[in-house]
Amino acid sequence: MRDAYHEDLDAISHVLVEMANLVGSAMSRATTALLDADLQLAERVIANDDAVDALYRDTEAKAFEILVRQQPVATDLRQVVTSLRMVADLERMGDLALHVAKVARRRYPASAVPPELRATILQMGHAAEEIVAKAGSVIARRDVDMAFELEKDDDVMDGLHRQLFQAMLAPEWANGVEAAIDIALVGRYYERFADHAVSVARRVVYLVTGERHDAPA
Amino acid sequence: MRDAYHEDLDAISHVLVEMANLVGSAMSRATTALLDADLQLAERVIANDDAVDALYRDTEAKAFEILVRQQPVATDLRQVVTSLRMVADLERMGDLALHVAKVARRRYPASAVPPELRATILQMGHAAEEIVAKAGSVIARRDVDMAFELEKDDDVMDGLHRQLFQAMLAPEWANGVEAAIDIALVGRYYERFADHAVSVARRVVYLVTGERHDAPA
Repeated sequence: MRDAYHEDLDAISHVLVEMANLVGSAMSRATTALLDADLQLAERVIANDDAVDALYRDTEAKAFEILVRQQPVATDLRQVVTSLRMVADLERMGDLALHVAKVARRRYPASAVPPELRATILQMGHAAEEIVAKAGSVIARRDVDMAFELEKDDDVMDGLHRQLFQAMLAPEWANGVEAAIDIALVGRYYERFADHAVSVARRVVYLVTGERHDAPA
Repeated sequence: MRDAYHEDLDAISHVLVEMANLVGSAMSRATTALLDADLQLAERVIANDDAVDALYRDTEAKAFEILVRQQPVATDLRQVVTSLRMVADLERMGDLALHVAKVARRRYPASAVPPELRATILQMGHAAEEIVAKAGSVIARRDVDMAFELEKDDDVMDGLHRQLFQAMLAPEWANGVEAAIDIALVGRYYERFADHAVSVARRVVYLVTGERHDAPA
Protein backbone atom coordinates (compact mmCIF):
# COMPACT_ATOMS: atom_id res chain seq x y z
CA MET A 1 0.00 0.00 0.00
CA ARG A 2 1.21 3.48 -0.80
CA ASP A 3 1.51 6.11 1.91
CA ALA A 4 -0.61 9.27 2.06
CA TYR A 5 2.23 11.25 0.62
CA HIS A 6 2.60 9.21 -2.53
CA GLU A 7 -1.16 9.15 -2.83
CA ASP A 8 -1.04 12.95 -3.00
CA LEU A 9 1.54 12.76 -5.78
CA ASP A 10 -0.59 10.21 -7.64
CA ALA A 11 -3.62 12.45 -7.27
CA ILE A 12 -1.76 15.30 -8.95
CA SER A 13 -0.70 13.01 -11.75
CA HIS A 14 -4.33 11.97 -12.24
CA VAL A 15 -5.46 15.58 -12.45
CA LEU A 16 -2.80 16.28 -15.08
CA VAL A 17 -4.14 13.40 -17.16
CA GLU A 18 -7.67 14.71 -16.66
CA MET A 19 -6.57 18.16 -17.81
CA ALA A 20 -4.95 16.63 -20.90
CA ASN A 21 -8.30 14.97 -21.67
CA LEU A 22 -10.21 18.20 -21.10
CA VAL A 23 -8.01 20.36 -23.29
CA GLY A 24 -7.93 17.67 -25.99
CA SER A 25 -11.72 17.59 -25.96
CA ALA A 26 -11.82 21.40 -25.99
CA MET A 27 -9.55 21.58 -29.04
CA SER A 28 -11.56 18.89 -30.81
CA ARG A 29 -14.81 20.80 -30.26
CA ALA A 30 -13.19 24.12 -31.13
CA THR A 31 -12.06 22.65 -34.45
CA THR A 32 -15.58 21.41 -35.19
CA ALA A 33 -17.04 24.77 -34.18
CA LEU A 34 -14.58 26.50 -36.48
CA LEU A 35 -15.19 24.27 -39.48
CA ASP A 36 -18.98 24.08 -39.11
CA ALA A 37 -19.50 27.65 -37.83
CA ASP A 38 -21.28 26.10 -34.85
CA LEU A 39 -21.84 28.98 -32.44
CA GLN A 40 -23.34 26.88 -29.67
CA LEU A 41 -20.37 24.55 -29.63
CA ALA A 42 -17.95 27.49 -29.68
CA GLU A 43 -19.75 29.01 -26.68
CA ARG A 44 -19.49 25.74 -24.79
CA VAL A 45 -15.74 25.51 -25.39
CA ILE A 46 -15.38 29.09 -24.17
CA ALA A 47 -17.48 28.46 -21.05
CA ASN A 48 -15.76 25.17 -20.24
CA ASP A 49 -12.32 26.72 -20.04
CA ASP A 50 -13.22 27.77 -16.48
CA ALA A 51 -13.07 24.10 -15.47
CA VAL A 52 -9.49 23.83 -16.79
CA ASP A 53 -8.52 27.02 -14.99
CA ALA A 54 -10.02 25.71 -11.75
CA LEU A 55 -8.02 22.49 -12.04
CA TYR A 56 -4.93 24.56 -12.71
CA ARG A 57 -5.39 26.59 -9.54
CA ASP A 58 -6.29 23.56 -7.42
CA THR A 59 -3.31 21.58 -8.65
CA GLU A 60 -0.93 24.45 -8.14
CA ALA A 61 -2.23 24.91 -4.59
CA LYS A 62 -1.98 21.18 -3.89
CA ALA A 63 1.56 20.91 -5.26
CA PHE A 64 2.55 23.84 -3.13
CA GLU A 65 0.98 22.28 -0.06
CA ILE A 66 2.97 19.10 -0.65
CA LEU A 67 6.18 21.12 -0.89
CA VAL A 68 5.40 22.93 2.34
CA ARG A 69 4.07 20.08 4.44
CA GLN A 70 6.08 17.14 3.19
CA GLN A 71 9.40 18.68 2.22
CA PRO A 72 9.96 16.07 -0.48
CA VAL A 73 13.48 15.22 -1.63
CA ALA A 74 15.12 13.83 -4.74
CA THR A 75 12.74 12.24 -7.24
CA ASP A 76 9.61 13.23 -5.33
CA LEU A 77 10.67 16.85 -5.23
CA ARG A 78 11.42 16.76 -8.92
CA GLN A 79 8.00 15.30 -9.57
CA VAL A 80 6.20 18.06 -7.67
CA VAL A 81 8.18 20.84 -9.34
CA THR A 82 7.74 19.27 -12.77
CA SER A 83 3.99 19.00 -12.14
CA LEU A 84 3.87 22.73 -11.54
CA ARG A 85 5.35 23.27 -15.00
CA MET A 86 3.12 20.73 -16.70
CA VAL A 87 -0.04 22.16 -15.20
CA ALA A 88 0.93 25.57 -16.61
CA ASP A 89 1.43 24.04 -20.08
CA LEU A 90 -1.95 22.33 -19.91
CA GLU A 91 -3.71 25.48 -18.72
CA ARG A 92 -2.21 27.35 -21.67
CA MET A 93 -3.38 24.63 -24.05
CA GLY A 94 -6.90 25.21 -22.75
CA ASP A 95 -6.50 28.91 -23.56
CA LEU A 96 -5.42 28.08 -27.10
CA ALA A 97 -8.52 25.92 -27.66
CA LEU A 98 -10.54 28.85 -26.30
CA HIS A 99 -8.86 31.19 -28.81
CA VAL A 100 -9.80 28.88 -31.69
CA ALA A 101 -13.40 28.84 -30.42
CA LYS A 102 -13.39 32.63 -30.22
CA VAL A 103 -12.40 32.90 -33.89
CA ALA A 104 -15.34 30.60 -34.72
CA ARG A 105 -17.65 32.84 -32.66
CA ARG A 106 -16.30 36.05 -34.20
CA ARG A 107 -17.02 34.91 -37.76
CA TYR A 108 -20.40 33.28 -37.07
CA PRO A 109 -22.65 32.72 -39.05
CA ALA A 110 -19.83 32.45 -41.60
CA SER A 111 -17.03 29.94 -41.22
CA ALA A 112 -13.57 31.39 -40.72
CA VAL A 113 -12.12 28.59 -42.84
CA PRO A 114 -12.19 28.91 -46.65
CA PRO A 115 -13.19 25.66 -48.43
CA GLU A 116 -9.70 24.98 -49.80
CA LEU A 117 -8.22 24.99 -46.28
CA ARG A 118 -10.86 22.83 -44.57
CA ALA A 119 -8.84 19.64 -45.00
CA THR A 120 -5.66 21.22 -43.62
CA ILE A 121 -7.41 22.69 -40.58
CA LEU A 122 -9.18 19.38 -39.98
CA GLN A 123 -5.81 17.62 -40.06
CA MET A 124 -4.35 20.18 -37.66
CA GLY A 125 -7.29 19.57 -35.32
CA HIS A 126 -6.71 15.82 -35.51
CA ALA A 127 -2.97 16.23 -34.99
CA ALA A 128 -3.67 18.39 -31.92
CA GLU A 129 -6.07 15.79 -30.50
CA GLU A 130 -3.63 12.95 -31.07
CA ILE A 131 -0.66 14.76 -29.66
CA VAL A 132 -2.45 15.70 -26.45
CA ALA A 133 -3.90 12.19 -26.11
CA LYS A 134 -0.36 10.86 -26.31
CA ALA A 135 0.83 13.47 -23.82
CA GLY A 136 -1.86 12.20 -21.45
CA SER A 137 -0.55 8.64 -21.87
CA VAL A 138 3.00 9.81 -21.34
CA ILE A 139 1.96 11.37 -18.03
CA ALA A 140 -0.14 8.40 -16.95
CA ARG A 141 2.31 5.66 -17.86
CA ARG A 142 5.62 7.56 -17.88
CA ASP A 143 6.10 6.20 -21.35
CA VAL A 144 9.37 7.67 -22.59
CA ASP A 145 9.12 6.00 -26.00
CA MET A 146 5.77 7.60 -26.66
CA ALA A 147 7.25 10.93 -25.59
CA PHE A 148 9.65 10.72 -28.52
CA GLU A 149 6.75 9.85 -30.82
CA LEU A 150 5.20 13.21 -29.94
CA GLU A 151 8.16 14.97 -31.46
CA LYS A 152 7.32 13.39 -34.80
CA ASP A 153 3.67 14.41 -34.47
CA ASP A 154 4.87 17.92 -33.83
CA ASP A 155 6.81 17.83 -37.11
CA VAL A 156 3.57 16.84 -38.85
CA MET A 157 1.85 19.82 -37.23
CA ASP A 158 4.64 22.14 -38.37
CA GLY A 159 4.26 20.81 -41.92
CA LEU A 160 0.51 21.50 -41.88
CA HIS A 161 1.21 24.95 -40.48
CA ARG A 162 3.52 25.66 -43.42
CA GLN A 163 0.82 24.43 -45.84
CA LEU A 164 -1.55 27.09 -44.48
CA PHE A 165 0.92 29.83 -45.22
CA GLN A 166 1.70 28.50 -48.69
CA ALA A 167 -2.02 28.54 -49.50
CA MET A 168 -2.53 32.08 -48.20
CA LEU A 169 0.47 33.45 -50.06
CA ALA A 170 -0.31 31.70 -53.35
CA PRO A 171 -1.56 33.90 -56.22
CA GLU A 172 -4.81 31.88 -56.21
CA TRP A 173 -5.76 33.11 -52.71
CA ALA A 174 -9.10 34.85 -53.21
CA ASN A 175 -10.38 35.00 -49.65
CA GLY A 176 -9.05 38.40 -48.77
CA VAL A 177 -7.29 39.84 -45.77
CA GLU A 178 -9.74 39.02 -43.00
CA ALA A 179 -9.71 35.29 -43.73
CA ALA A 180 -5.91 35.34 -43.99
CA ILE A 181 -5.59 36.98 -40.57
CA ASP A 182 -7.98 34.44 -39.02
CA ILE A 183 -6.11 31.52 -40.55
CA ALA A 184 -2.68 32.89 -39.62
CA LEU A 185 -3.76 33.22 -35.98
CA VAL A 186 -5.64 29.91 -35.87
CA GLY A 187 -2.61 28.19 -37.40
CA ARG A 188 -0.45 29.62 -34.68
CA TYR A 189 -2.88 28.44 -31.97
CA TYR A 190 -2.68 24.85 -33.21
CA GLU A 191 1.08 25.01 -33.53
CA ARG A 192 1.52 26.40 -30.01
CA PHE A 193 -0.93 23.81 -28.65
CA ALA A 194 1.30 21.05 -30.07
CA ASP A 195 4.44 22.77 -28.72
CA HIS A 196 3.02 22.76 -25.20
CA ALA A 197 2.08 19.08 -25.52
CA VAL A 198 5.66 18.33 -26.55
CA SER A 199 6.86 20.37 -23.59
CA VAL A 200 4.69 18.27 -21.23
CA ALA A 201 6.11 15.06 -22.71
CA ARG A 202 9.69 16.34 -22.39
CA ARG A 203 9.13 17.13 -18.74
CA VAL A 204 8.04 13.53 -18.16
CA VAL A 205 11.19 12.32 -19.93
CA TYR A 206 13.24 14.54 -17.65
CA LEU A 207 11.41 13.13 -14.65
CA VAL A 208 12.03 9.54 -15.68
CA THR A 209 15.52 9.71 -17.14
CA GLY A 210 16.96 12.85 -15.52
CA GLU A 211 17.93 13.98 -19.00
CA ARG A 212 16.69 17.23 -20.42
CA HIS A 213 15.36 17.39 -23.95
CA ASP A 214 13.73 20.76 -23.66
CA ALA A 215 16.30 23.17 -25.03
CA PRO A 216 14.07 26.22 -25.37
CA ALA A 217 13.66 27.60 -28.88
CA MET B 1 25.04 39.97 6.94
CA ARG B 2 22.94 37.58 4.97
CA ASP B 3 23.61 33.87 5.06
CA ALA B 4 24.72 31.85 2.04
CA TYR B 5 21.21 30.61 1.55
CA HIS B 6 19.63 34.03 1.23
CA GLU B 7 22.53 35.06 -0.96
CA ASP B 8 21.50 32.25 -3.32
CA LEU B 9 17.95 33.57 -3.37
CA ASP B 10 19.20 37.09 -4.02
CA ALA B 11 21.38 35.82 -6.85
CA ILE B 12 18.33 34.29 -8.53
CA SER B 13 16.45 37.53 -8.13
CA HIS B 14 19.34 39.39 -9.77
CA VAL B 15 19.37 37.02 -12.71
CA LEU B 16 15.64 37.53 -13.18
CA VAL B 17 16.20 41.30 -13.33
CA GLU B 18 19.05 40.76 -15.79
CA MET B 19 16.80 38.59 -17.96
CA ALA B 20 14.13 41.31 -17.91
CA ASN B 21 16.78 43.76 -19.15
CA LEU B 22 17.95 41.37 -21.86
CA VAL B 23 14.50 40.60 -23.23
CA GLY B 24 13.54 44.30 -23.07
CA SER B 25 16.64 45.16 -25.07
CA ALA B 26 15.91 42.30 -27.49
CA MET B 27 12.36 43.54 -28.10
CA SER B 28 13.59 47.11 -28.55
CA ARG B 29 16.12 46.01 -31.18
CA ALA B 30 13.64 43.67 -32.83
CA THR B 31 11.22 46.59 -33.21
CA THR B 32 13.92 48.74 -34.79
CA ALA B 33 14.96 45.88 -37.09
CA LEU B 34 11.33 45.44 -38.11
CA LEU B 35 10.66 49.11 -38.78
CA ASP B 36 13.97 49.85 -40.52
CA ALA B 37 14.34 46.47 -42.28
CA ASP B 38 17.74 46.18 -40.59
CA LEU B 39 18.88 42.64 -41.29
CA GLN B 40 22.07 42.86 -39.24
CA LEU B 41 20.17 43.97 -36.16
CA ALA B 42 17.57 41.24 -36.67
CA GLU B 43 20.34 38.63 -36.88
CA ARG B 44 21.85 39.90 -33.66
CA VAL B 45 18.54 39.63 -31.80
CA ILE B 46 18.15 36.09 -33.12
CA ALA B 47 21.70 35.11 -32.09
CA ASN B 48 21.44 36.74 -28.67
CA ASP B 49 18.42 34.68 -27.62
CA ASP B 50 20.87 31.91 -26.73
CA ALA B 51 22.08 34.03 -23.82
CA VAL B 52 18.52 34.28 -22.45
CA ASP B 53 18.04 30.55 -22.86
CA ALA B 54 21.30 29.87 -21.02
CA LEU B 55 20.21 32.07 -18.11
CA TYR B 56 16.89 30.24 -18.09
CA ARG B 57 18.56 26.85 -17.78
CA ASP B 58 21.09 28.04 -15.19
CA THR B 59 18.42 29.65 -13.06
CA GLU B 60 16.17 26.65 -13.22
CA ALA B 61 19.05 24.41 -12.19
CA LYS B 62 20.03 26.75 -9.38
CA ALA B 63 16.48 27.05 -8.05
CA PHE B 64 16.19 23.31 -8.09
CA GLU B 65 19.48 22.93 -6.26
CA ILE B 66 18.23 25.28 -3.55
CA LEU B 67 15.07 23.21 -3.18
CA VAL B 68 17.08 20.01 -2.86
CA ARG B 69 19.93 21.20 -0.66
CA GLN B 70 18.23 23.77 1.53
CA GLN B 71 14.69 22.48 1.87
CA PRO B 72 13.32 26.00 2.22
CA VAL B 73 10.02 26.60 4.01
CA ALA B 74 7.28 29.22 3.98
CA THR B 75 8.19 32.46 2.22
CA ASP B 76 11.56 31.21 1.00
CA LEU B 77 9.98 28.17 -0.57
CA ARG B 78 7.37 30.37 -2.22
CA GLN B 79 10.10 32.59 -3.58
CA VAL B 80 12.00 29.69 -5.16
CA VAL B 81 8.88 28.20 -6.73
CA THR B 82 7.71 31.59 -7.96
CA SER B 83 11.15 32.21 -9.48
CA LEU B 84 10.78 29.03 -11.49
CA ARG B 85 7.58 30.44 -12.98
CA MET B 86 9.00 33.90 -13.62
CA VAL B 87 12.08 32.56 -15.36
CA ALA B 88 9.80 30.63 -17.73
CA ASP B 89 7.82 33.81 -18.50
CA LEU B 90 11.02 35.72 -19.19
CA GLU B 91 12.44 32.98 -21.42
CA ARG B 92 9.20 33.05 -23.41
CA MET B 93 9.44 36.84 -23.75
CA GLY B 94 12.87 36.35 -25.30
CA ASP B 95 11.32 33.95 -27.81
CA LEU B 96 8.69 36.52 -28.73
CA ALA B 97 11.36 39.17 -29.41
CA LEU B 98 13.11 36.54 -31.54
CA HIS B 99 9.89 35.95 -33.48
CA VAL B 100 9.57 39.67 -34.24
CA ALA B 101 13.19 39.70 -35.44
CA LYS B 102 12.49 36.69 -37.66
CA VAL B 103 9.62 38.52 -39.37
CA ALA B 104 12.03 41.40 -40.04
CA ARG B 105 14.55 38.94 -41.49
CA ARG B 106 11.95 37.15 -43.60
CA ARG B 107 10.84 40.37 -45.32
CA TYR B 108 14.29 41.90 -45.78
CA PRO B 109 15.14 44.03 -47.78
CA ALA B 110 11.52 45.20 -47.55
CA SER B 111 10.00 46.27 -44.25
CA ALA B 112 7.15 44.11 -42.99
CA VAL B 113 5.41 47.23 -41.68
CA PRO B 114 3.34 49.35 -44.08
CA PRO B 115 3.86 53.11 -43.67
CA GLU B 116 0.44 53.72 -42.12
CA LEU B 117 1.16 51.24 -39.31
CA ARG B 118 4.69 52.40 -38.45
CA ALA B 119 3.47 54.65 -35.64
CA THR B 120 1.32 51.92 -34.08
CA ILE B 121 4.10 49.32 -34.21
CA LEU B 122 6.54 51.84 -32.79
CA GLN B 123 4.14 52.50 -29.92
CA MET B 124 3.74 48.77 -29.33
CA GLY B 125 7.51 48.43 -29.22
CA HIS B 126 7.74 51.27 -26.70
CA ALA B 127 4.90 49.84 -24.62
CA ALA B 128 6.70 46.47 -24.58
CA GLU B 129 9.97 48.08 -23.47
CA GLU B 130 8.28 50.07 -20.72
CA ILE B 131 6.26 47.18 -19.40
CA VAL B 132 9.27 44.88 -19.13
CA ALA B 133 11.38 47.66 -17.58
CA LYS B 134 8.66 48.03 -14.94
CA ALA B 135 8.52 44.27 -14.48
CA GLY B 136 12.26 44.37 -13.80
CA SER B 137 11.73 47.04 -11.15
CA VAL B 138 8.89 45.06 -9.64
CA ILE B 139 11.22 42.06 -9.26
CA ALA B 140 14.15 44.13 -7.97
CA ARG B 141 12.22 46.25 -5.46
CA ARG B 142 9.15 44.09 -4.86
CA ASP B 143 7.14 47.14 -5.73
CA VAL B 144 3.49 46.10 -5.57
CA ASP B 145 2.20 49.52 -6.62
CA MET B 146 4.21 49.41 -9.81
CA ALA B 147 2.89 45.91 -10.43
CA PHE B 148 -0.61 47.36 -10.65
CA GLU B 149 0.67 50.05 -13.02
CA LEU B 150 1.69 47.29 -15.42
CA GLU B 151 -1.93 46.24 -15.76
CA LYS B 152 -2.72 49.69 -17.16
CA ASP B 153 0.20 49.48 -19.58
CA ASP B 154 -1.16 46.16 -20.71
CA ASP B 155 -4.50 47.84 -21.47
CA VAL B 156 -2.62 50.34 -23.63
CA MET B 157 -0.97 47.45 -25.47
CA ASP B 158 -4.36 45.79 -26.02
CA GLY B 159 -5.71 49.07 -27.44
CA LEU B 160 -2.80 49.32 -29.89
CA HIS B 161 -3.33 45.68 -30.83
CA ARG B 162 -6.96 46.46 -31.67
CA GLN B 163 -5.84 49.44 -33.78
CA LEU B 164 -3.73 47.11 -35.92
CA PHE B 165 -6.72 44.95 -36.68
CA GLN B 166 -8.95 47.92 -37.42
CA ALA B 167 -6.40 49.19 -39.93
CA MET B 168 -6.03 45.82 -41.63
CA LEU B 169 -9.77 45.27 -41.88
CA ALA B 170 -10.56 48.77 -43.14
CA PRO B 171 -11.58 49.12 -46.80
CA GLU B 172 -8.51 51.36 -47.34
CA TRP B 173 -6.10 48.50 -46.62
CA ALA B 174 -4.02 48.19 -49.79
CA ASN B 175 -1.07 46.15 -48.55
CA GLY B 176 -2.40 42.75 -49.39
CA VAL B 177 -2.50 39.44 -47.61
CA GLU B 178 1.17 38.88 -46.85
CA ALA B 179 1.56 42.16 -44.99
CA ALA B 180 -1.67 41.47 -43.08
CA ILE B 181 -0.41 38.05 -41.95
CA ASP B 182 2.90 39.54 -40.83
CA ILE B 183 1.19 42.30 -38.89
CA ALA B 184 -1.38 39.95 -37.32
CA LEU B 185 1.41 37.70 -36.04
CA VAL B 186 3.69 40.55 -34.98
CA GLY B 187 0.76 42.16 -33.14
CA ARG B 188 0.19 38.94 -31.29
CA TYR B 189 3.90 38.68 -30.34
CA TYR B 190 3.82 42.13 -28.74
CA GLU B 191 0.57 41.41 -26.96
CA ARG B 192 1.84 38.08 -25.56
CA PHE B 193 5.10 39.75 -24.53
CA ALA B 194 3.12 42.23 -22.44
CA ASP B 195 0.95 39.44 -21.02
CA HIS B 196 4.03 37.58 -19.78
CA ALA B 197 5.39 40.77 -18.21
CA VAL B 198 2.08 41.21 -16.38
CA SER B 199 2.28 37.60 -15.28
CA VAL B 200 5.77 38.20 -13.84
CA ALA B 201 4.50 41.23 -11.93
CA ARG B 202 1.51 39.30 -10.59
CA ARG B 203 3.77 36.58 -9.29
CA VAL B 204 5.75 39.18 -7.36
CA VAL B 205 2.50 40.52 -5.90
CA TYR B 206 1.61 37.01 -4.86
CA LEU B 207 5.02 36.61 -3.28
CA VAL B 208 4.72 39.85 -1.33
CA THR B 209 1.06 39.85 -0.36
CA GLY B 210 0.11 36.18 -0.59
CA GLU B 211 -2.82 37.25 -2.74
CA ARG B 212 -3.26 35.93 -6.23
CA HIS B 213 -4.14 38.25 -9.07
CA ASP B 214 -3.38 35.87 -11.86
CA ALA B 215 -6.70 34.30 -12.74
CA PRO B 216 -5.75 32.66 -16.01
CA ALA B 217 -7.65 33.82 -19.09
